[in-house]
Amino acid sequence: MEQPAPITMKDIAKALGVSVATVSRAMKNSPRISDEQRERIQQYAREHNYIPNVIAENLRNSRTKPVKIIGVIVPQFEHFYFSSILSGIEQEAMSRGYTIMVGQSAEQYDRETLLCDKFYQNKVCGIIVSQAKDTMNYDHFKKLINSGVPLVFYDRICTGVDCSRVVVDDYQGAFNAVSHLIETGCRHIACYMSPMSLEISKNRYNGYRDALLRYGLEPDKKMFRICDNRADAEAITPELLSQDEKPDAFFAVNDDTAIGILYTAKRMGFRVPQDISVCGFTNGQRAVACDPMLTTVEQRGVLVGEEAADILISKVEGEIPMDKVVKRVVRTRLIIRGTTR
Amino acid sequence: MEQPAPITMKDIAKALGVSVATVSRAMKNSPRISDEQRERIQQYAREHNYIPNVIAENLRNSRTKPVKIIGVIVPQFEHFYFSSILSGIEQEAMSRGYTIMVGQSAEQYDRETLLCDKFYQNKVCGIIVSQAKDTMNYDHFKKLINSGVPLVFYDRICTGVDCSRVVVDDYQGAFNAVSHLIETGCRHIACYMSPMSLEISKNRYNGYRDALLRYGLEPDKKMFRICDNRADAEAITPELLSQDEKPDAFFAVNDDTAIGILYTAKRMGFRVPQDISVCGFTNGQRAVACDPMLTTVEQRGVLVGEEAADILISKVEGEIPMDKVVKRVVRTRLIIRGTTR
Repeated sequence: MEQPAPITMKDIAKALGVSVATVSRAMKNSPRISDEQRERIQQYAREHNYIPNVIAENLRNSRTKPVKIIGVIVPQFEHFYFSSILSGIEQEAMSRGYTIMVGQSAEQYDRETLLCDKFYQNKVCGIIVSQAKDTMNYDHFKKLINSGVPLVFYDRICTGVDCSRVVVDDYQGAFNAVSHLIETGCRHIACYMSPMSLEISKNRYNGYRDALLRYGLEPDKKMFRICDNRADAEAITPELLSQDEKPDAFFAVNDDTAIGILYTAKRMGFRVPQDISVCGFTNGQRAVACDPMLTTVEQRGVLVGEEAADILISKVEGEIPMDKVVKRVVRTRLIIRGTTR
Repeated sequence: MEQPAPITMKDIAKALGVSVATVSRAMKNSPRISDEQRERIQQYAREHNYIPNVIAENLRNSRTKPVKIIGVIVPQFEHFYFSSILSGIEQEAMSRGYTIMVGQSAEQYDRETLLCDKFYQNKVCGIIVSQAKDTMNYDHFKKLINSGVPLVFYDRICTGVDCSRVVVDDYQGAFNAVSHLIETGCRHIACYMSPMSLEISKNRYNGYRDALLRYGLEPDKKMFRICDNRADAEAITPELLSQDEKPDAFFAVNDDTAIGILYTAKRMGFRVPQDISVCGFTNGQRAVACDPMLTTVEQRGVLVGEEAADILISKVEGEIPMDKVVKRVVRTRLIIRGTTR
């Protein structure tokens, strides 16, 4: 407690003429800055005995400034992808001296507007949100922006306001997954998507279609279904697998649906992956619990959360102009496991 | 907006001489109050056009009072059981006009104390916490209590301070699970637990042991291991299953460990449940993703969260004296699926 205050990320940023976000990335060995930049910053930090420590950072902040709060709206905590995003937001916020206030919209517009009001009353410095499925009116978001409260959307972006956002590369993720299915010998690839009104469905479907076209295969309407949960997948898959021209692979919009397909195929006597390949999208805890383990597109929720918090904090701290719309895309990763050949 | 304000739960409580918590339970058809009491309260509510609506409740509160904040410390968001508890806390808090501020201790004592400090600076009206695994010093908790900030522990209770808490009936849950294994013909039941320094390990082990004794079976040290994750379960299970006197069943401290046992047994050529039965503890998303689906003890996280928030809010609102230590136990449920006979 009696030691001289160690230098902060801000001190380093000032001395080197870079942003605090850049210093933060250098310290985390983020791939998002050049090797040269990273080495220069890390060297300066070493020479000045910088302590890259969440706790130290926070102690310094807590003594000099009021605690800053970020509001976070999550559709539901019990959804693995959302809880991993929340974890990323919290980690980035804490490492930069911020605290988070959270609420679940439970997919209800009313709750979402209520949370916006509550966060505003609590003087949050900004809000990170994935909108509820039934939100069609965007006045609550516009009101916040007009009051000077920055917003950042993640996962489900709001098409009603032009706003900063972090999404994953749904198109490329789907393209890579379906390319893998084709390259391992599959030719009749079924596709199960969420309703096509959602951006993620459009983007993932387009990636699926373009991968087929790229390999000279024709998209077939009989191989497409609107289906995004296990119960529905178990209900509709027997019909597809009883057809004369049956699929030899399935690409599903999420892991839950993929697991429904996997077990239905096994129950009907097909071998996975010898007869039928299955690929999901998420890479949640279920993907390694099923047998065989699921090949899937990893959505990297922690990274999505970190990026969303980084945009918001950079705006609050003046490193990004408040009115600038920042759009970042987090790259997915194809995780190949036992349900594909 | 121009309508006369509808009556509140508080109005009903006053009129009938009961607590607001009791009215809340009556409206949720909670089994925790008598049928008679529930009917009396619901009738009064109907006669006075009470609107049992989270939104209405919050709008009323937000106009008359400052927003009240509850601090919540979670070991990690990505753990299904903790995210379900967080969901329960949030639902109970929102329905009574409170907002929550959260942080992850990431199992680190330093982060836990930092969160306590931050929450205190933000003037939270109380803190709900499951302590980090490495917390051995309780001064940060004592300081909060002495400052008039009520604490409620969930799941991992703090043995260092006598404080309100919500836990599940680990002993009874384990007793019921092991009784089920015995009743379905198992006689050599192995037991995998977390380190025995944890309360949950002691209680679940005692439930296991007493179920054996109750059925005239002798606990056997050779059947006991410290093991609480899948990787370790996959590493140590082959040895147990290669012994002359091998287990015909396994009782595991959590689902992750149980799944490691399940797949190891299958890989070694044993049939589950015909040759080997397996029972877990949690009932998270993995339990229905594995093949066969896992028999397990459901911990009911949402209910644990609701109870913890109810104790805290009741203290803040004067319905429970601040210095009263309230201990509630949520009953587990045995969920019988495909890994037991």
